[in-house]
Amino acid sequence: MPTSASLDHYLETHLDESIAELSRFCAQPSVAAQGLGIAEAAEMTAAMLRQRGFHTEIIPTAGSPVVFAERSGRDPNKTLLFYNHYDVQPPEPLELWETPPFEPTVRDGKLYARGVSDDKGHFVSRLFALDAMLATEGDLPCNVKFVVEGEEEIGSIHLEEVIREHAVRFAADACIWEFGGVDHRDIPQQIMGLRGICYVEMKVQTVNADTHSGQTGGIFPNAAWRLVWALNSLKGADERIRIAGFYDDVRPPSERDLELLAQLPDPAAEYRRRWGVEHFVKGVQGGVELWKAALFDPTCTISGLTAGYQGPGSKTVLPAHATAKVDFRLVPDQSPERVLQLLRAHLDAAGFEDVEIVCLSGERPVKMPPDEPFIDLVVKTAEPVYGTPMQKVPLSGGSGPGWAFHHYLGVPIATAGIAYPGSNIHAPNENIRLDLYLKGARHIARVLKAFATA
Amino acid sequence: MPTSASLDHYLETHLDESIAELSRFCAQPSVAAQGLGIAEAAEMTAAMLRQRGFHTEIIPTAGSPVVFAERSGRDPNKTLLFYNHYDVQPPEPLELWETPPFEPTVRDGKLYARGVSDDKGHFVSRLFALDAMLATEGDLPCNVKFVVEGEEEIGSIHLEEVIREHAVRFAADACIWEFGGVDHRDIPQQIMGLRGICYVEMKVQTVNADTHSGQTGGIFPNAAWRLVWALNSLKGADERIRIAGFYDDVRPPSERDLELLAQLPDPAAEYRRRWGVEHFVKGVQGGVELWKAALFDPTCTISGLTAGYQGPGSKTVLPAHATAKVDFRLVPDQSPERVLQLLRAHLDAAGFEDVEIVCLSGERPVKMPPDEPFIDLVVKTAEPVYGTPMQKVPLSGGSGPGWAFHHYLGVPIATAGIAYPGSNIHAPNENIRLDLYLKGARHIARVLKAFATA
Repeated sequence: MPTSASLDHYLETHLDESIAELSRFCAQPSVAAQGLGIAEAAEMTAAMLRQRGFHTEIIPTAGSPVVFAERSGRDPNKTLLFYNHYDVQPPEPLELWETPPFEPTVRDGKLYARGVSDDKGHFVSRLFALDAMLATEGDLPCNVKFVVEGEEEIGSIHLEEVIREHAVRFAADACIWEFGGVDHRDIPQQIMGLRGICYVEMKVQTVNADTHSGQTGGIFPNAAWRLVWALNSLKGADERIRIAGFYDDVRPPSERDLELLAQLPDPAAEYRRRWGVEHFVKGVQGGVELWKAALFDPTCTISGLTAGYQGPGSKTVLPAHATAKVDFRLVPDQSPERVLQLLRAHLDAAGFEDVEIVCLSGERPVKMPPDEPFIDLVVKTAEPVYGTPMQKVPLSGGSGPGWAFHHYLGVPIATAGIAYPGSNIHAPNENIRLDLYLKGARHIARVLKAFATA
Repeated sequence: MPTSASLDHYLETHLDESIAELSRFCAQPSVAAQGLGIAEAAEMTAAMLRQRGFHTEIIPTAGSPVVFAERSGRDPNKTLLFYNHYDVQPPEPLELWETPPFEPTVRDGKLYARGVSDDKGHFVSRLFALDAMLATEGDLPCNVKFVVEGEEEIGSIHLEEVIREHAVRFAADACIWEFGGVDHRDIPQQIMGLRGICYVEMKVQTVNADTHSGQTGGIFPNAAWRLVWALNSLKGADERIRIAGFYDDVRPPSERDLELLAQLPDPAAEYRRRWGVEHFVKGVQGGVELWKAALFDPTCTISGLTAGYQGPGSKTVLPAHATAKVDFRLVPDQSPERVLQLLRAHLDAAGFEDVEIVCLSGERPVKMPPDEPFIDLVVKTAEPVYGTPMQKVPLSGGSGPGWAFHHYLGVPIATAGIAYPGSNIHAPNENIRLDLYLKGARHIARVLKAFATA
């Protein structure tokens, strides 16, 4: 087995090569939402894995293909699975980028490019850790598999069916999630769950075209009003979601969850400073109460509203069409299928049979036991790298396809990665810090060693 | 005095010249909303009046200038005032025009151009009637004045202050309104009032930028939700407006008004056919009930909604900003100033101090007594031209600056014009029927004669 010192030495002396490889990968656009460069990026992903001696397969789907790769290691009875994605968010608005999104550039110890943090940098940093293993030892200490999808940024639409179908080949003992990183104090965080999501469009049409509001305002049904009333029936200013049965499957946070939340820094001041929040909803002030509301309350968020005239000045029109985008975040043990059923039943019962629901994405929540042994292994191996204990966060506010991995493969899932709060993921000037990139690779190498000998 | 026969003969033999003049006027763009060609159109308006021996003045305002013109007639004690406007609606969407909006074209007995009906055709048809008078008689039977504004399509923003300031010069005994015409059966209509309007933007900002709905959906105030709740507080599905005091100033239709409504054809079938209306609001079925709801109920119409992400697919965002355009139509004796006060008080009392109100336009309602003598003169002179009695409509669903004329000048207001339901005003392929253009001019000539001798 290689020593940590020899692994670290390899990584420190080969950082430039890894960053060069990452830059080549980031120069390849791969925007799932825009169907841009997907096949090319899938092929690059597979090629990078083949170069490391992995058997690879590009599994086609009705959307972006999934790249699967596996390589055997010294211990044939232990398999570590990495989940990553090669697709990236759209780069727009382009004018806010200091350097073009698909021309990776190093400035001030950071590498800037669309997807460099989310998620290409995570993927390549893991290859970098494997390179160190292979260079110092000649092989890997256990079996390693990769599942690298190309639709994470559009809701992992086809991933669940691929995992279900290939559950035997994808089988593993544990999974490292696509992301990970440090908080604003540079303290590494272990995110132990993902909320689910049910993202819908609510659409109303009342007549066949917009009409003159002076002539029709008192007699024609107005799509914008219908939508406002339907939305209002879902949630009031008390933030309580009024859909009958919505809270039935909600599992409240455990004592251990609350204990972990109490150890996290209070984000209230940061939220007030950064976003200009004057008050939080539900009368929450900060601390554990704020964390609990942010992570353990399921939500019903209007993400968009569209109806009628939206330009400058006045146009006296009665809108025939109106649409809302509504994002429900789900906590254990809710499911998007059930929420869709309850939403339809609620609208029908409330007299809104005319409001159409189009489901745009659905993912179930997943949550690891806070003291799961694999998670503790990942947490423990972080400390020598970061010089401070990794902090456990019981749930993420965000969502992802974690449930499918956990359900079909039975793997525990841990996070380990290279992100930091200034990474600007999903935003212009996305970047990684090279120091954290190196630490991320050092951590992954240690996870692999510890996992193989555990 | 010229005989009706000699007037009609002049008009029938000079139609082409008048249409040529109207075409030149329509070839000049004059889009107030876009600040396009306003000065040029005001100058053309004044020049056409000067050619007919009018003293003209172009009165500047903070917006488009108002063209005022006067010419004395045989009876120095009688003055008829014409109100028109030289501005037009924006021509967009251009791709739906069969011929370009500012290249007037005759097809199938119709003249097509932006503004040809609303309102340049009305203006030029009146000049045409004066031409017939002047050609057959050498002078006009009474004093004639014109007030031609350039902001009608953007709410006549500066007209009221011009009328107030120039009330002595603008003084007249009666006023012919900018529009008039026939219904879908070719029966001429006399519109005896205009509803008022109070058009506002309701704006909410909760934080300083859109945030990730997964992270913030359970804790940050959402501008779209604030707006939905504020709007919902204004009106429910029963269509009753919940603003305290809103209905206090509403004068219900008189017995005479209801009698006039009962004489109008039931528009229900036409609305169902043309707009695909499945049911009207408030349980209204048709007939007088439908007319009453359309004209005599004040309204609160959402004309537009804007918040967050509105593109295809899903974007998981919590909107920082949300805006609604809301169009209140007012009936006698409501006023936009009072409605604004009541709306602010309502929002404050309902906990929506954070909802900003921006008033984009305000006009008071105006309504003539149904049996006003000048209106009866206009009605009576229509019958020989149209071959059928003119039908009285007690109020229009739409709005306009009628109140300012009535209030500051004390004039009764009647409608007489060239429009028909297929005119496509405010829409692509705006047009006039040449037969109705000729009838409109014949009617105006008769009004002038009858008015001078009344």
